[in-house]
Amino acid sequence: LDEAAMREAAARLDQLIKPPGSLGRLEELAIRLAGITGTPVAERPLRKAVVVMAGDHGVCDEGVSAFPQEVTPQMVLNFLQGGAAINVLARQTGAEVVCVDIGVKGDLAHERLLSRRVRGGTANMARGAAMTREEAIRALVAGIEVAEELAERGYGLFATGEMGIGNTTPSAALLAVWGGLEAKEVVGRGTGIDDAGLARKREAVERAIAVNRPDEADPLDVLSKLGGLEIAGLAGVIIGAASRRCPVVIDGFISTVAALAACKLAPGAEPYLIASHLSEERGHGLALRKLGLAPMLHLGMRLGEGTGAALVFPLIDAAGGVLREMATFDSAGVSKG
Amino acid sequence: LDEAAMREAAARLDQLIKPPGSLGRLEELAIRLAGITGTPVAERPLRKAVVVMAGDHGVCDEGVSAFPQEVTPQMVLNFLQGGAAINVLARQTGAEVVCVDIGVKGDLAHERLLSRRVRGGTANMARGAAMTREEAIRALVAGIEVAEELAERGYGLFATGEMGIGNTTPSAALLAVWGGLEAKEVVGRGTGIDDAGLARKREAVERAIAVNRPDEADPLDVLSKLGGLEIAGLAGVIIGAASRRCPVVIDGFISTVAALAACKLAPGAEPYLIASHLSEERGHGLALRKLGLAPMLHLGMRLGEGTGAALVFPLIDAAGGVLREMATFDSAGVSKG
Repeated sequence: LDEAAMREAAARLDQLIKPPGSLGRLEELAIRLAGITGTPVAERPLRKAVVVMAGDHGVCDEGVSAFPQEVTPQMVLNFLQGGAAINVLARQTGAEVVCVDIGVKGDLAHERLLSRRVRGGTANMARGAAMTREEAIRALVAGIEVAEELAERGYGLFATGEMGIGNTTPSAALLAVWGGLEAKEVVGRGTGIDDAGLARKREAVERAIAVNRPDEADPLDVLSKLGGLEIAGLAGVIIGAASRRCPVVIDGFISTVAALAACKLAPGAEPYLIASHLSEERGHGLALRKLGLAPMLHLGMRLGEGTGAALVFPLIDAAGGVLREMATFDSAGVSKG
Repeated sequence: LDEAAMREAAARLDQLIKPPGSLGRLEELAIRLAGITGTPVAERPLRKAVVVMAGDHGVCDEGVSAFPQEVTPQMVLNFLQGGAAINVLARQTGAEVVCVDIGVKGDLAHERLLSRRVRGGTANMARGAAMTREEAIRALVAGIEVAEELAERGYGLFATGEMGIGNTTPSAALLAVWGGLEAKEVVGRGTGIDDAGLARKREAVERAIAVNRPDEADPLDVLSKLGGLEIAGLAGVIIGAASRRCPVVIDGFISTVAALAACKLAPGAEPYLIASHLSEERGHGLALRKLGLAPMLHLGMRLGEGTGAALVFPLIDAAGGVLREMATFDSAGVSKG
């Protein structure tokens, strides 16, 4: 991060007509954005993109989700048609939704869909590796390239989103390994599975770890054996955004596990992460803590798609606006304490 | 609240392409807004106004604030000139800042200032009643009238804001009485007072309660003896908004104590309150709990002015947008779980 820009932003914040530090995390955000972008006071808000990565999961064969797998491509089409929750929230916050097929099962085509398909869904991790090491790398690279292309096109602020029926299951498995946690601590109800399904999900996570024996010291080994294509793809987006000095807002449970993967692979990505909301999904708080991130929104959401992250865009714009537009004690003639 | 409108909004939320309830408090907000306004699906976002009430406090003589009293009128002029934090955040969220002089010490005039001055600051509550009962009523009525005038002019969503050097001290005293709490539990650092000032502040609150012996069963007695003109005024704004079926977003500590006062005087106002952020100021969490409200934003802010409340406007617009714009399972051809 650009320390000089951060010092300059911090000094300016203390000249603004408010008690020092009284805007709390808005001030922290303003300082960090200065450090990330190298610009103490940005002239205008950053251009925003929500990257929604979609992939399918072989582990659905174990009955781990409340919805059938066909919902993954159906929802992708909805993202492209503009009728999903993330479209509504992105429109309201002035963000573009960029939809990427990184591994949806079955054929999918649409003029606005970025097709970066590595394979048509993962294999069932409860019976073997979800992906090969090479496939995980290809998904990561695809994510990095998407972020770089968007940065080229002028986007300066990213949010992660995902769609993939079953994807809280691999996320829980990854968090169990990287967090040193048991399946029962990290497995939650996802889109709303019943008690029997929850037990199956827990068992699938335990079996996947037992069958695959991932090497905790080798992030790519863990990610390929227990991950998902969209999780690897989002890890790539995060790494690509960081490499272009763009901040990236992390959505809920799956996105936060993708951020964990990104930071395992590229620890330098950490300061580029901005936490958004605290999801209802069981493992989310644990995953955030593992990254040392504190959520700003407490809304009890559990939808994914990038919806929680998009709701943070106005807070980021607010942080920038405060630096840009507020008067100083001197200019306004206000007495200091 | 309009139960039929709430049922209709809830039914529509469950038809939208997302797992039921997965948008959490955004869904609760959408349902409550339907109940408040009587419109299940609003055609457009509500017009927003942040009402900033300004008043001075005789208790400043006890050395309870980090800033001198002259800052109150100085900041009011800044609100009117557009350079304060609340102006920046209101512009970003499409809200109007309405500034009311309900009891600033000394002369103040500006073409956009609503002058509703009851008296030029309260008396020192550590030595006697802050206001007479009649003055508290006049401040309440002024607030009710401001809300009603704004509702007449088409504003449909309010936020409370305040400015008044020293006003966390009367707020702490009111919360101590209404919450059955001790001074040390409710007195915080306000704009940033040092340890010696904190001790003086605690003592001032204790003395104010001992000297005035407010009758807890008589909300007007408590409010007039220990309150502030802007606190009474905001309680009036809340009551006026509720009477016009307008939701009102409650800012930080002082605003939340004003909401407590409003609900003591008019318990029917409660369902019209929308909590915003959790302030750093010590007593805020306690005051929210007393009202049964949970904050949505955790930003460690402690500025007042309505800044935390304004940051909730985009969330309210998001809740409305979801209901208005999202596709349904049927229209989008998505399989249900």
